[in-house]
Amino acid sequence: MADVVDIDRMGIWDKRDDMLVHQEEPYNAETPPGALAAPITSLDAFYCRNHAPIPRIDSASWRLRVEGLVDRPLELSMDDLRRFTERTVVATLQCAGNRRADLMEVRDIPGQVPWGPGAVSTARWSGVSLADVLAEAGVRPQAAHIAFTGADVSQQADPPQPFGGSIPMTKAASGEVLLAWAMNDQALPAAHGAPLRVVVPGWIGARSVKWLERIGAQAEPTGNHFQTEYSVLPPEADPEAVGPGDGITLGPVAIHCAILRPGGNERVAAGPTEVSGFAFAGENRTVARVDVSADHGSTWTHADLDPPESPWTWQHWRTVLTLPPGETELVARAWDSTAAVQAESPVTVWNPRGYANNAAAHVRLTCRP
Amino acid sequence: MADVVDIDRMGIWDKRDDMLVHQEEPYNAETPPGALAAPITSLDAFYCRNHAPIPRIDSASWRLRVEGLVDRPLELSMDDLRRFTERTVVATLQCAGNRRADLMEVRDIPGQVPWGPGAVSTARWSGVSLADVLAEAGVRPQAAHIAFTGADVSQQADPPQPFGGSIPMTKAASGEVLLAWAMNDQALPAAHGAPLRVVVPGWIGARSVKWLERIGAQAEPTGNHFQTEYSVLPPEADPEAVGPGDGITLGPVAIHCAILRPGGNERVAAGPTEVSGFAFAGENRTVARVDVSADHGSTWTHADLDPPESPWTWQHWRTVLTLPPGETELVARAWDSTAAVQAESPVTVWNPRGYANNAAAHVRLTCRP
Repeated sequence: MADVVDIDRMGIWDKRDDMLVHQEEPYNAETPPGALAAPITSLDAFYCRNHAPIPRIDSASWRLRVEGLVDRPLELSMDDLRRFTERTVVATLQCAGNRRADLMEVRDIPGQVPWGPGAVSTARWSGVSLADVLAEAGVRPQAAHIAFTGADVSQQADPPQPFGGSIPMTKAASGEVLLAWAMNDQALPAAHGAPLRVVVPGWIGARSVKWLERIGAQAEPTGNHFQTEYSVLPPEADPEAVGPGDGITLGPVAIHCAILRPGGNERVAAGPTEVSGFAFAGENRTVARVDVSADHGSTWTHADLDPPESPWTWQHWRTVLTLPPGETELVARAWDSTAAVQAESPVTVWNPRGYANNAAAHVRLTCRP
Repeated sequence: MADVVDIDRMGIWDKRDDMLVHQEEPYNAETPPGALAAPITSLDAFYCRNHAPIPRIDSASWRLRVEGLVDRPLELSMDDLRRFTERTVVATLQCAGNRRADLMEVRDIPGQVPWGPGAVSTARWSGVSLADVLAEAGVRPQAAHIAFTGADVSQQADPPQPFGGSIPMTKAASGEVLLAWAMNDQALPAAHGAPLRVVVPGWIGARSVKWLERIGAQAEPTGNHFQTEYSVLPPEADPEAVGPGDGITLGPVAIHCAILRPGGNERVAAGPTEVSGFAFAGENRTVARVDVSADHGSTWTHADLDPPESPWTWQHWRTVLTLPPGETELVARAWDSTAAVQAESPVTVWNPRGYANNAAAHVRLTCRP
């Protein structure tokens, strides 16, 4: 069984040198393309999305409160939590802002992190099922939402407040939502929410609250700033002027994909070339097909698609295309198990905060003759 | 409580005169646009999709067999079924071939019904929850799929076989899947599957098997011809040559919409005009936004959107656009609760059998000055 991370390790990111660091404080860094090719992302390459510095938590005195619309409010230590059945789920987490850089090429999005395609990673998460803890607390029928609050107080909210988010009870009651204390069979690192974090498979990363301190059962979604911050607003909306109910508050991830090889700056020879990447379909859907084109969509090649490691993970794909000498644009589009396909262009999905870019992936490259 | 339909009523379609009848035998008819504007579709306007004539069933001697990977195989009469708790779900059903006509404009699809946008309707369904019947039978853990078989023997399969389909156990165990004996608080009509039919909310209509005779718990999806017939094949595939595992076997419905008013042949005056329609998001998703354009997508107006009658129904929308005199094309596109949007063009989603057309809706019309 994994040990709780020691307070001494706090403040150490323990990341590879080639992480693409967008911000040092709060630390926001994406996984390098090479590391995205592995089915499971190593701890030192797993992307980091933060809204505040790592909170200093003494794991011995730390407690998880479970309260709100419950029959038996709980206050649980890590030892208490370890008495529940340990469960493991392999799941991909992805920031709602992943691939925002492509949206910024359409129109600038000031004040937001310009994520490339690497704000996504996959781990083997272990801990207790949220549903088991909720059953112990006895959630009342009026509770339609489960709210999570972390210990990380963010200055990005006004007034500053701890990061939080909520999910509907239907999702919370599913077995796959974990309160995790281990990642890839190692103790959950401080950088990823030790001693305990939420993992909501198939949903935007923002709902997988780190440094968890409180679980609230309630009738409505949480009023936490970060719940509605993660919304797709209509293109013409002023993000400073909208109300909290405006826009599409994000939850499950929509079908999308990324091209990993060749990369945009890679110099490859014309001729048969392996093109590879991954695709991800959120909640209750899988990736059914990935098409790749080197001729602006006149012809499409169906890529070989790996089965998912679990119903909650990305799926890698690859195919060989014959590339012409000179400039080429590769396009990849994924279809989910309902035969829904990605939008053709980032222009269609552009939105003022730059979330949920699930437009087809594009890579421009120049091939040597 | 609704009565079982009498055998004497068999063979009577009881439909309005303005149904758009594509085939008399088997009877395939779509709901007229006017009737699609009501939240609940009247029985005499509900669309009909058949693969065979209505089977003649004596409801007194009729039995439902529940067998396969179960601890207690069952043989249930209608009286036995009525001893379970009666449940009601308002749900939209939609044929996977809905709006095939738009795909046929891209490239012909021989031998298939040229459905317009009316192979969709909504009813209040009452009956027993499939989950309750499965619990009574004691489904074994190895059963990953629940197969349904109707009494309607179709000549469209070779050799002829009863219509059937299956759904995964996860969906079958959800409370919303019904074995229905009533529709809009009236006895289920013979035309819609009396004495008993399946209703799988949020999934393509083909899985809501009518004239139900058998439920099988099994490890794999059903081998019934119509299970894999309802697949989206790659555009270049020859539908006569593909294997049963090829393509995307359809289940949940992807986000889509239709424009009801003004209709394509309507002569309207230029100026402010109400544009209205409906949108539908399947399984676990709702319609989050509908955009309408009269200028080929240069500008989009967000329509007013009704809340769904239940999590399983369409949502109607309306807005006012100022239409110019002369020829105009209206375009409507819907976004689901994950911020996934419909494909821009039927060209993108064209497939050899013409299923799952969820491209944006287009209506061309000419406005009087």
